[in-house]
Amino acid sequence: MQKTPAAEPPQIVKLPCSEYPAAGPVAEIAKNGYAPGPAYGQGTMTSYTEYLTINTKERYEIRDITAEVERVRAAAKLQEGFVLVSTMHITSSIFVNDHETGLYADIMAWLEELAPFGKDYKHHLTGEDNADAHLKRMILGHQVLVPVTGGKLDLGPWERIHYGEFDGRRNKRVLLKAFGF
Amino acid sequence: MQKTPAAEPPQIVKLPCSEYPAAGPVAEIAKNGYAPGPAYGQGTMTSYTEYLTINTKERYEIRDITAEVERVRAAAKLQEGFVLVSTMHITSSIFVNDHETGLYADIMAWLEELAPFGKDYKHHLTGEDNADAHLKRMILGHQVLVPVTGGKLDLGPWERIHYGEFDGRRNKRVLLKAFGF
Amino acid sequence: MQKTPAAEPPQIVKLPCSEYPAAGPVAEIAKNGYAPGPAYGQGTMTSYTEYLTINTKERYEIRDITAEVERVRAAAKLQEGFVLVSTMHITSSIFVNDHETGLYADIMAWLEELAPFGKDYKHHLTGEDNADAHLKRMILGHQVLVPVTGGKLDLGPWERIHYGEFDGRRNKRVLLKAFGF
Repeated sequence: MQKTPAAEPPQIVKLPCSEYPAAGPVAEIAKNGYAPGPAYGQGTMTSYTEYLTINTKERYEIRDITAEVERVRAAAKLQEGFVLVSTMHITSSIFVNDHETGLYADIMAWLEELAPFGKDYKHHLTGEDNADAHLKRMILGHQVLVPVTGGKLDLGPWERIHYGEFDGRRNKRVLLKAFGF
Repeated sequence: MQKTPAAEPPQIVKLPCSEYPAAGPVAEIAKNGYAPGPAYGQGTMTSYTEYLTINTKERYEIRDITAEVERVRAAAKLQEGFVLVSTMHITSSIFVNDHETGLYADIMAWLEELAPFGKDYKHHLTGEDNADAHLKRMILGHQVLVPVTGGKLDLGPWERIHYGEFDGRRNKRVLLKAFGF
Repeated sequence: MQKTPAAEPPQIVKLPCSEYPAAGPVAEIAKNGYAPGPAYGQGTMTSYTEYLTINTKERYEIRDITAEVERVRAAAKLQEGFVLVSTMHITSSIFVNDHETGLYADIMAWLEELAPFGKDYKHHLTGEDNADAHLKRMILGHQVLVPVTGGKLDLGPWERIHYGEFDGRRNKRVLLKAFGF
């Protein structure tokens, strides 16, 4: 194991903040023991990637994966930047909404109305029966970019990151890519 | 106030450009007075975050926030990178479309058709009455990544960034995170 | 032509990987001939931007542009980061789904059901006839952030990046911005 060839420059963050969390600037953040500099954050970029495997019991299912996103942020030691959360399958979604099971049921019923299962889709000429899943996933979207500020997922009080499955009961992968410094 | 511990390396940008703005390469950009180098841009990453508070008069409202995005880009002194614009509430949207009030009305009428207010949603068993807002916001999406090129928001001629409110008349926050160099 | 004023630090990548591609960590990546360091990737950020022009024969058309995204990644010599693919027009989409022409037809028929052409839209008071395109594009979305890992577009086996046109037969531009190291 070699040493890292070049020492990293000090990484210094001082964030302006107009409204949140209501008490003016976010606390000054100094990594590596350096005192905060005169300006906002600057640093050398880090990239860290994991792949989460999800296998749902049901064909249609919604699952809160916020804890996984935070786990990846922490593993990457990210102070400032993003975690991209992106499903690698074209019959599932990543979306942000309330963690509330009544709403989960509403979302599924609503998607079934907008893009019903079992219609005479042309995609089914290939032997598949999941065209509805390909459509449903478009409405909720397939990826979310989670901001990281001051070493935390920078989410609103009710924002939770969800995986939406529309053709489950088999292994599906979700990419989690932390990017920043 | 301390000095920045390490001088920043010169940041140099020379962008290839095949089609736009029709006259070949984007102008060479030299920050810090350095002459342009032989290649595309490279630099030390900067992160800058603000939180915008929006309180709409109406329950349903669309508002153009493009000027706020440019203001944050300028405050961050961003030449290359992105501004992430992301609503922190789960009953509102961030989306890109035409700044045209007729279209605003069309969008609201259309969303009301696809996800009507006042239906017998399971989410309302919690005491809420805004399940339609949770659904409407999924169609338009909750975040946009605005590219920054050569010190400008890199938008097409009609692209404008909008905030869509579906449960307003109270304070809502929008995260604006500039990231790049 | 001047020389780059400052030598770049070595850029070193070693990626953790829990599940994919099934055989443990992604291969260690060493740029510039350096051996891999002890941790995940770090580097000086690069930005590279191109604009793709698309002129479809039909008013409504779906086109796979994955090869263009890979071309831009390669031109930027990106090992880790993202390519933002974002249409610069408000009557077209960028989305990820299966490359399957039956599904393309299903998507177009479905969008026509959800947001029909030729209705009495208020937007048409401006003289336009394409309000349906402004709505259709919202369902599929207007941008995708394509992750790059280990020098490759980090896509699932069926993920393909598509351009969706809903008011074509004229030049439209798509921004491709590679960002990372």
